[in-house]
Amino acid sequence: VGFGLGIGTRIRKSAFFDATVAAGVTHFTTYNHMLMPVSYGDTVAEYWALVEGVVMWDVACQRQVQLSGPDASVLAQAVVCRDLSGADVGQGRYTPMVDHSGRLMNDPVTLRVDGERWWISLADSDMLFWCRAIAAERGLAVEVVEPDVSPLAVQGPRAEDVVADLFGEWIRDIRFFRYEPTEVEGIPIQLGRAGWSKQGGFELYLLDGSRGTELWNLVAEAGAPHGICPGTPNYMERIESALLSYRGDTLDDSDPFEARLEPFVDLDSDVDFIGREALIALRERGLRRQLVGIMIEGGPIEGPQHPWPVRHRDALVGSVRAAARSPRLDRNIGLAIVDVPANALGTDLVVQSQHGRRGAIVVDLPFIGR
Amino acid sequence: VGFGLGIGTRIRKSAFFDATVAAGVTHFTTYNHMLMPVSYGDTVAEYWALVEGVVMWDVACQRQVQLSGPDASVLAQAVVCRDLSGADVGQGRYTPMVDHSGRLMNDPVTLRVDGERWWISLADSDMLFWCRAIAAERGLAVEVVEPDVSPLAVQGPRAEDVVADLFGEWIRDIRFFRYEPTEVEGIPIQLGRAGWSKQGGFELYLLDGSRGTELWNLVAEAGAPHGICPGTPNYMERIESALLSYRGDTLDDSDPFEARLEPFVDLDSDVDFIGREALIALRERGLRRQLVGIMIEGGPIEGPQHPWPVRHRDALVGSVRAAARSPRLDRNIGLAIVDVPANALGTDLVVQSQHGRRGAIVVDLPFIGR
Repeated sequence: VGFGLGIGTRIRKSAFFDATVAAGVTHFTTYNHMLMPVSYGDTVAEYWALVEGVVMWDVACQRQVQLSGPDASVLAQAVVCRDLSGADVGQGRYTPMVDHSGRLMNDPVTLRVDGERWWISLADSDMLFWCRAIAAERGLAVEVVEPDVSPLAVQGPRAEDVVADLFGEWIRDIRFFRYEPTEVEGIPIQLGRAGWSKQGGFELYLLDGSRGTELWNLVAEAGAPHGICPGTPNYMERIESALLSYRGDTLDDSDPFEARLEPFVDLDSDVDFIGREALIALRERGLRRQLVGIMIEGGPIEGPQHPWPVRHRDALVGSVRAAARSPRLDRNIGLAIVDVPANALGTDLVVQSQHGRRGAIVVDLPFIGR
Repeated sequence: VGFGLGIGTRIRKSAFFDATVAAGVTHFTTYNHMLMPVSYGDTVAEYWALVEGVVMWDVACQRQVQLSGPDASVLAQAVVCRDLSGADVGQGRYTPMVDHSGRLMNDPVTLRVDGERWWISLADSDMLFWCRAIAAERGLAVEVVEPDVSPLAVQGPRAEDVVADLFGEWIRDIRFFRYEPTEVEGIPIQLGRAGWSKQGGFELYLLDGSRGTELWNLVAEAGAPHGICPGTPNYMERIESALLSYRGDTLDDSDPFEARLEPFVDLDSDVDFIGREALIALRERGLRRQLVGIMIEGGPIEGPQHPWPVRHRDALVGSVRAAARSPRLDRNIGLAIVDVPANALGTDLVVQSQHGRRGAIVVDLPFIGR
């Protein structure tokens, strides 16, 4: 079933919108109240370009919340679950955000831009308002705004060559989740080694939204000798790599543990943050459900539009949140939220898909790249 | 330019999704992280059905924030700009929400469901998280959740007849913005006289999301003798009626005054709420820009995808947020945000549309129904 997308001023366009239209984008979703490309017409071709070559993605919908001022670091530490005390300037960290009850609200990358300035690079929820609420209620001396920052991702095994051709060989020394201020043709950019794939690459944070088409074209030109293609965050690759999609792979009351984010929650350090006590209590209580990998039997499937019910021995135990045929594994793979103990590896499940009932089994994550 | 919409589990379907697909929906937007129908293929026909007959709309994306518990009324009063002290059970009020600096964040209808329970029926922003932040930071004894409530609107001059046929003649006595608990065929409903048009009608708040298709079909059957059609909140009618579209007609730092919401901001009562002092200061400062009506010269236009720049005597003074050919006026009408003093009635403007440069003039609002 295919539907058209109504377009107006309520959902904002990205700085790269015109460029993506010129490049042939066919499908959008929305993310942080912006249009986000999700296909140029052949997502399998985009997949292979991502895992074997290089692709460029408009991910300007990763909106930033900028915290600046004397209490910026106090607020940053209050709103994320990671210990930020050792963060260097230019260092990003994957930082779940939870509310006072420990419910997951976002899973951004938080970057220390300079001593008193932080950028929180958001998944899809209005954390700008959340940060303003906490700042104002606590009387913190901090300004909370959305800055003019539009990320453009260059991903894939040949991404480094493209970015080196554009910015210089020095970029090869940038470590993972490190960001450097730079420019190209006078366009200001914060350049980091990051991106929502496991294929390696960079994010170019465009710092002047009026120059999106210029930057897009410069990357396309630098990438042409390397075979760069326009693409989008790839549904198949992100399932293979078990990259979390907040809202897709989580429920309204999910906590970081069930979403497999425990490595990114610092409960054993001294730092305090919103939800810390609730998370300690949840950790002591133990898991009640969990996001798990599943292999699904039979011929190729398409992903769920409505979540698929999941049963174990005729009892409803959860739902499939994402599923696809893995091109590299040539198997049907998926991510499901299931109740304990059906989360145990090897558990037999039955999923009710739009393709009918299919057997499935719980497997370890990630599917590729363990 | 037409684009497809990628559909997955991240953007939720409404309780009426399957029914709207069966009814022939062709285009969606997203709203509060849900799919919202915006066309069944002929929005002009849907317009005439709305203004001359009766239409039914899936507006389940008007998500509710439910406040319940001993401090529910304290929290409700803290987060909206209206004096709620006189609110009866079953009474709704149009209630702008602003942050501590007076910036508009939402313009919901707030309903007192019972003595200690409120529903805030949202425009498109995550006020669930905002309300939880305020409640937790202030230590209020209140539970803040999204309840199982899915509004279905029946709008137009024949809406009352349809709803009376379905629920009984008593519904004719329901006053504007009053809501009554009721049921039909055992389906629990909160029925109110409300809706996002100026054509009159009702909203049926479905209180059991598993019964969306049942309710849709009951309304369609009751409406058939009255010529009911599936439709959606209508872009042309809402511009004619000057109904605000939050995010479309507002900017990130818009205040309620520039959005023409002063009648719904109670600064002269004794009640305190978030942003009150900031709004008093903004009122004293005076308007710097305003949402205004404009008439645009020339042949029929389509609305802006990107906001159209607006000039007055060659100076950039704002942007057009929405525009359409009014079927009843047979004129091009629009809503623009312009700087003072270009907001004065009769000001000559030039708009840069996708149809080329057009002359325009500032006019009074609403266009119809003054």
